[in-house]
Amino acid sequence: MVIIMEKKLAIGVDIGGTSIKGAAITSEGKVLDVFSMPVIKGDSQEKVVNDLIKVINDYLKEHQYDKDNILGIGLGIPGSIDTSIGVVTYSNNLCWNELPIQEMVEKGTGLPVRIINDANAATYGEAKFGAGKKYKNLIMLTLGTGIGGGIIINGELYEGNLGKGAELGHVIMKLDGEQCSCGRKGCFEAYASATALIRDTKKMMELHPESKLGEVARKLGKIDARVAFEAERLGDECGHILVENYVKYLSEGLMNYFNIFRPEAVVLSGGVANEGEYLLSRVREYCEREHYGYGGTPKVDIITSELGYDSGKIGAAALFFK
Amino acid sequence: MVIIMEKKLAIGVDIGGTSIKGAAITSEGKVLDVFSMPVIKGDSQEKVVNDLIKVINDYLKEHQYDKDNILGIGLGIPGSIDTSIGVVTYSNNLCWNELPIQEMVEKGTGLPVRIINDANAATYGEAKFGAGKKYKNLIMLTLGTGIGGGIIINGELYEGNLGKGAELGHVIMKLDGEQCSCGRKGCFEAYASATALIRDTKKMMELHPESKLGEVARKLGKIDARVAFEAERLGDECGHILVENYVKYLSEGLMNYFNIFRPEAVVLSGGVANEGEYLLSRVREYCEREHYGYGGTPKVDIITSELGYDSGKIGAAALFFK
Repeated sequence: MVIIMEKKLAIGVDIGGTSIKGAAITSEGKVLDVFSMPVIKGDSQEKVVNDLIKVINDYLKEHQYDKDNILGIGLGIPGSIDTSIGVVTYSNNLCWNELPIQEMVEKGTGLPVRIINDANAATYGEAKFGAGKKYKNLIMLTLGTGIGGGIIINGELYEGNLGKGAELGHVIMKLDGEQCSCGRKGCFEAYASATALIRDTKKMMELHPESKLGEVARKLGKIDARVAFEAERLGDECGHILVENYVKYLSEGLMNYFNIFRPEAVVLSGGVANEGEYLLSRVREYCEREHYGYGGTPKVDIITSELGYDSGKIGAAALFFK
Repeated sequence: MVIIMEKKLAIGVDIGGTSIKGAAITSEGKVLDVFSMPVIKGDSQEKVVNDLIKVINDYLKEHQYDKDNILGIGLGIPGSIDTSIGVVTYSNNLCWNELPIQEMVEKGTGLPVRIINDANAATYGEAKFGAGKKYKNLIMLTLGTGIGGGIIINGELYEGNLGKGAELGHVIMKLDGEQCSCGRKGCFEAYASATALIRDTKKMMELHPESKLGEVARKLGKIDARVAFEAERLGDECGHILVENYVKYLSEGLMNYFNIFRPEAVVLSGGVANEGEYLLSRVREYCEREHYGYGGTPKVDIITSELGYDSGKIGAAALFFK
């Protein structure tokens, strides 16, 4: 009954490569009942969207949400979208192409729909209701499979032309360097994403089978971004080198954005950011040592996200709380 | 008499390392009578500012400008400034340090004064009255001794915290690469400024004395950024390699900013931009060949400045036409 009394709700939906999660969100950024559905590989894009429409309609009925109280549905989507016409131009993760998802979901639910890039959604969520709420200008970086980015200028999301900006992972920091998934060589993402750290960890394991990297990976059951950090904590020299290199890549990338935006804060999220202060304190130290990118200029707060996996849902819903 | 009838004028001043130039500017961005004074090496910062105050007061008297018709004085200054308190924190070019120039010029002229970084002034001028006036979101890069940058978001200048952002030349594009004047290694400026091209030209001349580079330099009377382009036009292979490399550095740097901002346009100015379409057509071609930074996304217009050396004066004055 409390829910029905809420006057301003929006549905925030976070579409991922393997599952779709959503919730009703209050205008204060509170997450109410959640729903989720799997994304089955091989299903057509139309089937996935029609399934999503059904899930949303069932959810609204089940929780007795009055559609008159729902301002709309925000969809956070990985990949390249065109916000001006509500179309997913191309999503590598989902194998979607030229999908008019906004119109489809509007027709299927009878509610207004807006779409947003997933990294922008997470950034907007953190800026409105999370770690970024006390800052006017900030950037957010998600250090996961890739590096997602978001930009807040004067409290508002800056998405670039047709919503195709803020690709903060796809900036070359090493000309002719490591191949990036985007086609360019030497992108920030190819050095400071979890995927890049895993690549470097595997290389190091092959070169140094005597290191503790293998032992740690066996304990964790897989080679992920934690292996290097865990090995370093055990005093392993190879782990230490991997982490030091990672700190350098991340810090140099951050300082690039400090010089470009001179924001008040950068919010880090995603797998690698889970290392928390163990990583962040060293990144701050590295930046502090630099002449131009940090020292002698207004400090940039380097912090981690507060909303975690909810940031995307909250940010997508928040498109209706502007 | 025409001048006195203008109701809204502002004085725009462009402070450089060797001279200071200024003019009364109309609210339509028209440059009226100009003034200039040399900056003598060795003069104290206080002396330079006091001389400037005298020059401005004399100028107003000489041209019979009524101070009541002057909205204020905008000062474009190279280096690191703090717009919140009107102080030049540090200017390498001018050897200025912690100089409260805004307060000094206000007291000395009795007019309101605002200060702005010189690259930001040029950008604001182009955005308001020059090549950028039909765009809402754009960046500007000045390819000179260094690389200056400016950012326009939604028609407004974005300066970053305390006016210290938009340092678009000081972004690392080649980790551990060429030493940059800022202290970092591998900055965009260390590859795509006129200074960088001159460095590379000198290296090439030493390696290949048989090339036409030396002949061209002798004709021009000095080794500047034009030597490589001129030699290439004469069919010289070394000149061709230098220009091809320069096109690559500039294009990769531009694509970085395309991915970050996805602006509608980038405006290029400064010495190297004087090569005009000879350079720009090849930069566009290079960007077009790339998968991610240009093709498949909204095109970014790559254009040159319209206001030339007036852009800084006009932009500084335009701070009073907001």
